[in-house]
Amino acid sequence: MTTGYTLEQLSIEQSVEYRKVVTEADVHAFAEVTGDTNPVHLDAEYAASTSFGQPIAHGMLTAGFISAAIGTQLPGPGCIYLEQSLKFRAPVFIGQEVVTTVTVIDINERRRRATLKTVCECEGKVVVTGEAVIMLPAASV
Amino acid sequence: MTTGYTLEQLSIEQSVEYRKVVTEADVHAFAEVTGDTNPVHLDAEYAASTSFGQPIAHGMLTAGFISAAIGTQLPGPGCIYLEQSLKFRAPVFIGQEVVTTVTVIDINERRRRATLKTVCECEGKVVVTGEAVIMLPAASV
Repeated sequence: MTTGYTLEQLSIEQSVEYRKVVTEADVHAFAEVTGDTNPVHLDAEYAASTSFGQPIAHGMLTAGFISAAIGTQLPGPGCIYLEQSLKFRAPVFIGQEVVTTVTVIDINERRRRATLKTVCECEGKVVVTGEAVIMLPAASV
Repeated sequence: MTTGYTLEQLSIEQSVEYRKVVTEADVHAFAEVTGDTNPVHLDAEYAASTSFGQPIAHGMLTAGFISAAIGTQLPGPGCIYLEQSLKFRAPVFIGQEVVTTVTVIDINERRRRATLKTVCECEGKVVVTGEAVIMLPAASV
């Protein structure tokens, strides 16, 4: 299926959960495609000297899971991503599973926009919070 | 060098520019590591049926360039990424160069935080705008 929900199919409190384990290979690939080679993500020795004590995933990689949940599930393909706010509250370590929950909190029918609450958790701890604003095109016939 | 600027070394209007061409391989790798397989990024035929007309890069991949500029250049390793706001204003197409500019706009010495204006452009057109908040640890001796 390459068509997601239409605006009319969304309802307040509608929610999806997306789970992804962050591997060392994921972090290295993310560093490669973005150029973010900060050693706190890639160099165990350097990371051990920081307050984190071990390598952490890029915050923007975790944010990518929000994009995945929105772009593939709620509302899925067809929506246009307009805004995202992100608060990085705690680190994500290599090997941890990130549970991303996206919940519809506002629907503006006139502007065809929806606001989604976006929360990422690791082992029950909130690691990223924020909100997304998306636009949904008119339903195709 | 694995140590970036300290808070004391930052000044208002200090700025860096980071350039990265988005390749098809980058977009596929980003889809792989995040799970964001929305066909608007990966499927030329599907993308041709959208308002974009051709595949577009994930907005969060472009946001990764902001992370790269902050994590490797200004202020570089040692800072802690606290917040990022993102407005996705226009699409980034495969093969385009994204020019990301990060500029210091506020410094809070007491809280050891800095606010950065973050702008991504493609061929002179603004594609992503936002602000980052970072914390800088106390300067090491």
